[in-house]
Amino acid sequence: MIENRNDNEVQYDEELLRQLLLDGNIEEFREHYLALHPYDQAQFYEKVGPDIRKIIFLFLSPQELALIFEALEIDNSEYEEYLKEMETSYAAEMLSVMDTDDAVDVLNELDEEHRDSFLEMMDSETVEEFHELLAYEEYTAGAIMTTEYVSILQNSTVRSAMNVLRNEAPNAETIYYVFVVDDQHRLTGVISLRDLIVSSEDTLIKDIMSDRVVYANVTADQEDVAQIFKDYDFLAVPVVDENNELVGIITVDDIIDVIDEEASDDYSKLAGISDVDDVNVNPFKAASKRLPWLIILLFLGMITATLMGQFEATLDKVAILALFIPLISGTSGNSGTQALAVAVRGIATGEIDGKNKLKLLFREISTGLITGIICALVVIGIIFFWKHSLIIGLLVGAAICCSIVVATIAGSFIPLLIHKMGIDPAVASGPFITTLNDITSILIYLGLASMLIGQLG
Amino acid sequence: MIENRNDNEVQYDEELLRQLLLDGNIEEFREHYLALHPYDQAQFYEKVGPDIRKIIFLFLSPQELALIFEALEIDNSEYEEYLKEMETSYAAEMLSVMDTDDAVDVLNELDEEHRDSFLEMMDSETVEEFHELLAYEEYTAGAIMTTEYVSILQNSTVRSAMNVLRNEAPNAETIYYVFVVDDQHRLTGVISLRDLIVSSEDTLIKDIMSDRVVYANVTADQEDVAQIFKDYDFLAVPVVDENNELVGIITVDDIIDVIDEEASDDYSKLAGISDVDDVNVNPFKAASKRLPWLIILLFLGMITATLMGQFEATLDKVAILALFIPLISGTSGNSGTQALAVAVRGIATGEIDGKNKLKLLFREISTGLITGIICALVVIGIIFFWKHSLIIGLLVGAAICCSIVVATIAGSFIPLLIHKMGIDPAVASGPFITTLNDITSILIYLGLASMLIGQLG
Repeated sequence: MIENRNDNEVQYDEELLRQLLLDGNIEEFREHYLALHPYDQAQFYEKVGPDIRKIIFLFLSPQELALIFEALEIDNSEYEEYLKEMETSYAAEMLSVMDTDDAVDVLNELDEEHRDSFLEMMDSETVEEFHELLAYEEYTAGAIMTTEYVSILQNSTVRSAMNVLRNEAPNAETIYYVFVVDDQHRLTGVISLRDLIVSSEDTLIKDIMSDRVVYANVTADQEDVAQIFKDYDFLAVPVVDENNELVGIITVDDIIDVIDEEASDDYSKLAGISDVDDVNVNPFKAASKRLPWLIILLFLGMITATLMGQFEATLDKVAILALFIPLISGTSGNSGTQALAVAVRGIATGEIDGKNKLKLLFREISTGLITGIICALVVIGIIFFWKHSLIIGLLVGAAICCSIVVATIAGSFIPLLIHKMGIDPAVASGPFITTLNDITSILIYLGLASMLIGQLG
Repeated sequence: MIENRNDNEVQYDEELLRQLLLDGNIEEFREHYLALHPYDQAQFYEKVGPDIRKIIFLFLSPQELALIFEALEIDNSEYEEYLKEMETSYAAEMLSVMDTDDAVDVLNELDEEHRDSFLEMMDSETVEEFHELLAYEEYTAGAIMTTEYVSILQNSTVRSAMNVLRNEAPNAETIYYVFVVDDQHRLTGVISLRDLIVSSEDTLIKDIMSDRVVYANVTADQEDVAQIFKDYDFLAVPVVDENNELVGIITVDDIIDVIDEEASDDYSKLAGISDVDDVNVNPFKAASKRLPWLIILLFLGMITATLMGQFEATLDKVAILALFIPLISGTSGNSGTQALAVAVRGIATGEIDGKNKLKLLFREISTGLITGIICALVVIGIIFFWKHSLIIGLLVGAAICCSIVVATIAGSFIPLLIHKMGIDPAVASGPFITTLNDITSILIYLGLASMLIGQLG
């Protein structure tokens, strides 16, 4: 049977599976369910709810459930709940046979007591492996790597390498790269399965391996690791510790999740939310993710109002000035957000680094001037032909031009500054920069207006 | 030699390579340069400029240059220029040995005449292959797939499959999945190299292959294909035509670029730029990417000013009202952008579909009400304790609450509407929604103020 994902069809007969579970028809359930891809198994597993899941535990071994658990797409905070549905010994057995990186991701989400209750039931070798991985900081290469890789000694032959591969194939995360080490387990090279199968059996590994290995340090940031994958198109990258000893590998499927997450992350911050929730999140939780920024910005907005209070006399005299406030603050906010987006993405992708910061700044000042002058001319034209007032047009145009230049510089310079301080530049979220630019643009506008008050009255 | 990408070191000795080229030292240049990873070769190639590149053509064969061209990270518009540096026959030879998907990407960027000058020089088989791929629409599975895959008949044995693999290994994009077809070349299954190397040589492929293949239609959107990779963690996905015949495969390295592009794309649109340029783009080009939105929004801003003109009398009477305009329009803009970000990402990741649109809308209305009421209370409190005015506080609070609710609904509903019309919801860019929300929030505020004008005076 061929499946087609593009028709948005469900890949399995949900009702049938549910009925087989309720009927206690173990054999037929297993036949249908285990034939599915783990992703689809996991989708069904998430959907049916806790009561039906309790029947699934009776029908599947911990080994079989481990594959499903690796494919779950639930919030990190939900793992605790999902594990509590199982008996502790069943859950412990399942965790110990999961891919170590996935198991560690789950264990990381549990409170210590709960986690220890599982670790107590596992054999000491597995526990040690978990403890090592749990020690790495979140978002580092160490935290996302797996220890299930295939390595061989550089002095072995293609024949023995192929034998190692055949034995390790059921457990290893990938067998398409074999990492080559010396007798102190230091990384010295890499060879692909592709190269192995076209080489004669007696060839020595060290004669055909590539000794220019691109690797990641165990403490490297996961974004830097993602960049390696984007640049070099690898399927797996080895991870080494400070002694150059091979300690794990990172595979491309885990990196896809990292790339997706990081991009989502920058995006959320540009929009001023802590993270992009999905449609199933309830309104209270959704509101709690959005309120922090909104309330901080309310206070900033009150500062704007207070500063504008200084110009109340001017506004009182020439009420028409108020009409262009949203136009000016909006335009400055927009150009600031544009500059911000370019700077944050540039820093994230590594295109902007220490050396070309000044170049970027100069480019942004020039860009700000060009866009500012063009926008000013457009505004002067509109106001002149529409409102028949040259002086108001010139005032608004000048304010827009200055605001755009200032906003563009702020939008690119503030993230660079924050990045230099070692903070993720994406925290300089869009709304924050926008509100700052609001304040400066309005001050520029009303300041200019106050100076020209004689002409305006 | 081990290379470490995390130290941000350059992976090669640029000066040495440059000198070897200028000295005409072919042998030593080739020895150093060809030992590099194609990504690093490409980085050097981009950096040295056209004059030095002309020497490189003399030192490398078109086959060697093809690998470099596949790894270039230049703007699509630059390919034309790069190809014009070479002799036509050299360029044609290089294009014909590149991975077909990469070569087609390049050919797609050339004007017809230039493209035909290359195609004329290639053998008819290659030309036919290119013509087929060039016919697929951009951003579809057909446009990003490669035709260099390994397929075998379902009735062959593991032994013959391994022989096919050994022969095809140098040309195929991946040999880690072998796609199984019937005698009409219809896709019937898939088998991994992993499964092949652990099976005995006389086993029939059809007995060990997986017959539940997840595939993409040749006309499918590249975002849908990316979703398959995210869900199923595949290294390659087969592509079939309307008769279920296997026509190509898509590999994970190409999909990483798609995921990165699409996320960048949504991000740019949220910021109101046509795409995120890098630091090397000159100010005029950068300005031209930003001006379209800025100018459209200027016109929208003029509409805001005109509508506000209706309330000039009110503003004239109570100038203090103007002080809170930026606060109210800012807050409404921010909450609208938050709702927009959630809706656009939800649609992009497929989390929001036809069935749960109403659910999302209901969730957003509730979220808008909760955030609106809380923000209103905060504002009333601040204005009361700060400005000692309850009536202004109540007015601004009410306006903020209404604006947030309207902005939240608009932010989620407009992208859903646009998506239903078959347009990419990300075009409902952040600044556009923000400006719309500006208008409504100011109308709500000044409308309320006009009604209460008796109390305010």
